[in-house]
Amino acid sequence: MRPAGGAPRVVILGGGFGGLYAARALRRAPVRVTLVDRRNHHVFQPLLYQVATAALNPSDIAVPIRHILRRQANAEVILGEASAVDVGARKVILADGEVPYDYLIVATGAAHSYFGHDDWARFAPGLKTIEDALDIRRRILLAFEAAEREIDPDRRAAWLTFVIVGGGPTGVELAGAVAEIARRILREDFRHIDPGSASVFLVEAAPRVLQAFDEALAQRAAQALRGLGVEVLTGAPVSAIDATGVSIGDRRIPARLVLWAAGVAASPLARSLGVPLDRAGRVAVTPDLTLPGHPEVFVIGDLAALRQDGRPVPGVAPAAKQMGRHAARNILRAVRGLPYLSFHYRDAGSLATIGRAAAVAEFGRVKLWGLPAWLAWLVIHIYFLIGFRNRMLVILQWAWLYLRYESGARLITGDIDSLLNRDTSSRR
Amino acid sequence: MRPAGGAPRVVILGGGFGGLYAARALRRAPVRVTLVDRRNHHVFQPLLYQVATAALNPSDIAVPIRHILRRQANAEVILGEASAVDVGARKVILADGEVPYDYLIVATGAAHSYFGHDDWARFAPGLKTIEDALDIRRRILLAFEAAEREIDPDRRAAWLTFVIVGGGPTGVELAGAVAEIARRILREDFRHIDPGSASVFLVEAAPRVLQAFDEALAQRAAQALRGLGVEVLTGAPVSAIDATGVSIGDRRIPARLVLWAAGVAASPLARSLGVPLDRAGRVAVTPDLTLPGHPEVFVIGDLAALRQDGRPVPGVAPAAKQMGRHAARNILRAVRGLPYLSFHYRDAGSLATIGRAAAVAEFGRVKLWGLPAWLAWLVIHIYFLIGFRNRMLVILQWAWLYLRYESGARLITGDIDSLLNRDTSSRR
Repeated sequence: MRPAGGAPRVVILGGGFGGLYAARALRRAPVRVTLVDRRNHHVFQPLLYQVATAALNPSDIAVPIRHILRRQANAEVILGEASAVDVGARKVILADGEVPYDYLIVATGAAHSYFGHDDWARFAPGLKTIEDALDIRRRILLAFEAAEREIDPDRRAAWLTFVIVGGGPTGVELAGAVAEIARRILREDFRHIDPGSASVFLVEAAPRVLQAFDEALAQRAAQALRGLGVEVLTGAPVSAIDATGVSIGDRRIPARLVLWAAGVAASPLARSLGVPLDRAGRVAVTPDLTLPGHPEVFVIGDLAALRQDGRPVPGVAPAAKQMGRHAARNILRAVRGLPYLSFHYRDAGSLATIGRAAAVAEFGRVKLWGLPAWLAWLVIHIYFLIGFRNRMLVILQWAWLYLRYESGARLITGDIDSLLNRDTSSRR
Repeated sequence: MRPAGGAPRVVILGGGFGGLYAARALRRAPVRVTLVDRRNHHVFQPLLYQVATAALNPSDIAVPIRHILRRQANAEVILGEASAVDVGARKVILADGEVPYDYLIVATGAAHSYFGHDDWARFAPGLKTIEDALDIRRRILLAFEAAEREIDPDRRAAWLTFVIVGGGPTGVELAGAVAEIARRILREDFRHIDPGSASVFLVEAAPRVLQAFDEALAQRAAQALRGLGVEVLTGAPVSAIDATGVSIGDRRIPARLVLWAAGVAASPLARSLGVPLDRAGRVAVTPDLTLPGHPEVFVIGDLAALRQDGRPVPGVAPAAKQMGRHAARNILRAVRGLPYLSFHYRDAGSLATIGRAAAVAEFGRVKLWGLPAWLAWLVIHIYFLIGFRNRMLVILQWAWLYLRYESGARLITGDIDSLLNRDTSSRR
């Protein structure tokens, strides 16, 4: 449908931080906003690893996009998947329709990249969506179940070995959370295995973990991980992943569970925009965040490649939010006949949590670690969680988790048999 | 593995109310307990409809069985599916192993029965597991999404028509909850449809709903449902269900969503016990709850057919709990060389909730309806919820739901496309 007339139609693809903040920034603008997402919910990505590790429920960190925008009269939400953008005809192609636009904001984000080894995806799932998180949760919990029934010691050890590939914040947080599950939360649950005997490896190709952080902080994080029993392997590029383990050069780690937190690749939608992409599939945008030659098309968030002061703007939530607001501001200026402004990224700092009362944080020159960093992490994440209801529920569940080491979302749902690869020869 | 010697091994199949209460009742008994379930969690079935209608999270009403039994030193839990019982050899056959027993308690419950119309299952899912509840939640929420994008008025009306088949407590509760979602919770979320215009039908073949209840109470429940906008059709046996709707004799109701709350059939495991089964596939047990001719095999809960005082013991949670405790008591007596006692069912009353501040309840001669019945429902369900943590979370979410009409678990997860059956001809 063509807009009936009057207000220009702004179409936003993607309901992540970038798309959502753009939509909200347009709430009083004389435009009609259509937000398209293939999921009905916005996900608070920074806490997704807590769903994957059974600490929180999906709905604690995910809110229906319609609900967030329910009182924004100029906005509508379409559940649908954009397959391409026709920039010449100014319309978005969905699997089941077309949506014309006057302004377009592309904010479809990134997926995993296995650096050319797409066959690893089957053995080493990554963490981007609620479905990914539930799949990882199922795999972690099933590994302990399988170990409990396994009699052969080598096979049992392989079920109790967890390898996390990638030493960025997600990898560090996953490794810490998996170690805490094994050492504390499941402590009393089994009769034939000691969950605390599980091995957790964090494998990073670069010389150190948390490369975006100050080096001394990164070392403190690695120390805290070792304190939780995580083996941190740096300068260790993975050369093979299959159903039975991980190879790092000559070294072989037999493991039934491998998680991927190493690489991201921009959403394939970028290819249809008709502009050159960088190696990770991202769109090199102009300083005003638009597509070169198409001032009506904005690209923001993880999908946008932009250098500023000689450094790339990082693919983090605060950058996506700032870009979303900036794209909205520029559209508003265009509607009023004013020229676009250039985007300036303000570094909001970096945070990574390792476990109960342990984290590292960097806000400009202020560096925190241990309990103070963890408290900063706690306050910031609760503050930014969308919805007061979610905040209360998350606080309550964290209280249980951190005070009593009880996590509540330890459910194995969905398909079990295909993961267990059942072999009856050495079963209890 | 054979028991190492000494204590007799009690194997319990199924971690529902019957199996779990049996295991707990054996906590101080000189036996070794092995509980086998194909899921890692116990489900608080009476609130499952609230997960299906997005009011609660799966983990609010489901707790890992291991966690419940973690401090019971004489109990172990096996994640596995029993495919048969070899009563002669006294062992349970799993998909991936065998478990020998000295005493067996079969408590595998019931699944849906489509009364010979198994082809209806595809179009009218039932509600027994967490996975069922998540599937129904996805279908309900997707129906509104599809209606929002549909331009053709007839097709849109079909997306906004919900038929619940079966007027027992589950059907009544589902119909009330679906009506509340449409009328209240989604009220502001859409731009092209009015969710309040949705049609909800409750279809029952018998002359009235809630047949286990007093007739006057059942009429009050039907009235309360009509007050929520539910069309209650009684004396209306369904003759056909397909992808486009439901037929009741000559009447056709075009509907894209049909839910099944009509019939249950005992778990197929019963067939391997080598005894005659009743029409619903249940095992006619002796008054001491054992298999005729096999005093070491108990059958309890929904799987057991037992008449008492001329009436069948109903397939409800309190009956399963009482049977579980009784089977445990009889095993303890046998270990001590004492004879078995007969089981006596104590009717704990009946409850069904219709929506906010509306329910019907029957405790012997005490009959309640409206707000008092609803408060009784609230207190009883919170009291019986396993785990203090869950109780707190449920109370908090109910406060939001009933005070602010905001439900938090409105996430569409998993496969979307196969449900939408996408037809692009009349899409917005």
